Amino acid sequence: MKTIDICLTPNLIPDFDLEGKVVVVVDVLRATTCMVTALAHGVSRILPVESLDEAAAYQTQGVIACAERDGRKADGFDLGNSPFGFMDPTLRGRDIVMTTTNGTKSIVRSRHAQSIVVGGFINLGALSRFLTVKGRDVVIVCAGWKGKVNAEDTLFAGALAAKLDMHFSPANDSVLLARSAYEHNKANLKYFLAKSSHFQRLMGFGLEKDIDFCLKEDMYHTVPFLDADGYLVAR
Amino acid sequence: MKTIDICLTPNLIPDFDLEGKVVVVVDVLRATTCMVTALAHGVSRILPVESLDEAAAYQTQGVIACAERDGRKADGFDLGNSPFGFMDPTLRGRDIVMTTTNGTKSIVRSRHAQSIVVGGFINLGALSRFLTVKGRDVVIVCAGWKGKVNAEDTLFAGALAAKLDMHFSPANDSVLLARSAYEHNKANLKYFLAKSSHFQRLMGFGLEKDIDFCLKEDMYHTVPFLDADGYLVAR
Repeated sequence: MKTIDICLTPNLIPDFDLEGKVVVVVDVLRATTCMVTALAHGVSRILPVESLDEAAAYQTQGVIACAERDGRKADGFDLGNSPFGFMDPTLRGRDIVMTTTNGTKSIVRSRHAQSIVVGGFINLGALSRFLTVKGRDVVIVCAGWKGKVNAEDTLFAGALAAKLDMHFSPANDSVLLARSAYEHNKANLKYFLAKSSHFQRLMGFGLEKDIDFCLKEDMYHTVPFLDADGYLVAR
Repeated sequence: MKTIDICLTPNLIPDFDLEGKVVVVVDVLRATTCMVTALAHGVSRILPVESLDEAAAYQTQGVIACAERDGRKADGFDLGNSPFGFMDPTLRGRDIVMTTTNGTKSIVRSRHAQSIVVGGFINLGALSRFLTVKGRDVVIVCAGWKGKVNAEDTLFAGALAAKLDMHFSPANDSVLLARSAYEHNKANLKYFLAKSSHFQRLMGFGLEKDIDFCLKEDMYHTVPFLDADGYLVAR
């Protein structure tokens, strides 16, 4: 039986052997939710980069550049980190470059995995089907917040682990803990998250609509995966 | 209001600013439970050290040496890591040196905190009273298992955070997650832990009696704290 493990923050990635495994990077609020949304709405490819400078360099070459820092759109870029911004029909068939506080860094730092996919509640079912068919050991890398554990990514990791229960065995106690957190709060994730730090930060920016969208299950069948050129493309 | 935070594994200690704070090191199964038990039963001082070599060097000087690796007593030492071993009346008034797979390392690596105390379910109430009176920011450092998160230390962290709820605000989402795990499983911690890795390891060694003892709440009022010489002594 294949195993499932959870890396609760990107600062713990060095403790995980990702060789030959599938990594699922999750930044529910909101980077990986945006990536799913963008590809589902027809964006061609997404290049995740670590720094604002890299994103700006691509922007000068005509690539649409999305940049978020601390929950807000970074100055001078085309788009921030709201999923609704990626539903724009004028983005269809275009490449975009993206940098966010946590999500894009986690993708870049997971590069030594056999393959990398990203997601959130909005493609939970599609992800679990993809991973089951793929049949390799899975590590869910939670983007967290600036190196610290966050509630929403841990809940999502628990939700995905629960979905995969029949086909994967837990490699580590973090799976038990995340599943317990999800299963005891799934009837009202928003109520549980109301006490969490990033939820409160986004609410302070008037972004409740974004949060509600990011917590919706199975909106899309798209599973973004990282291709050999370092771009996320739709499977 | 003072804050409470949880460091889910010692590998994350570098991400926490421990300056001026009280650190609670917890290795429920079984190192810190043993430390409480030893001091409560009259041991004079406990010197936590990282390596077997250090412990052996003290042993040659006549200090009682306790050493555990991978859940078993290390060869050639006086005691392992079973709380019942520390109830021996011949230990009264003696110093002991101790090294364990996870617990003692976490203490050594937290040395830059303002003060360090250790505990488990067996001194939960005493710890919460001590921390409330102390009135400083608190970081609970979970010893985990070889750098990974473990279930029993996270549950304990959640239990202590719940006790401190009136006087401390959560600094981080890890507090919400640990509290949720504890509060949803407190009616039967052992049932929840039955799926966890270290529980199964200890059960395999025939140590169910140890597990049952380590999960008992409020057996002792002792709060071991690290003195200026690096020894744990009873408060």
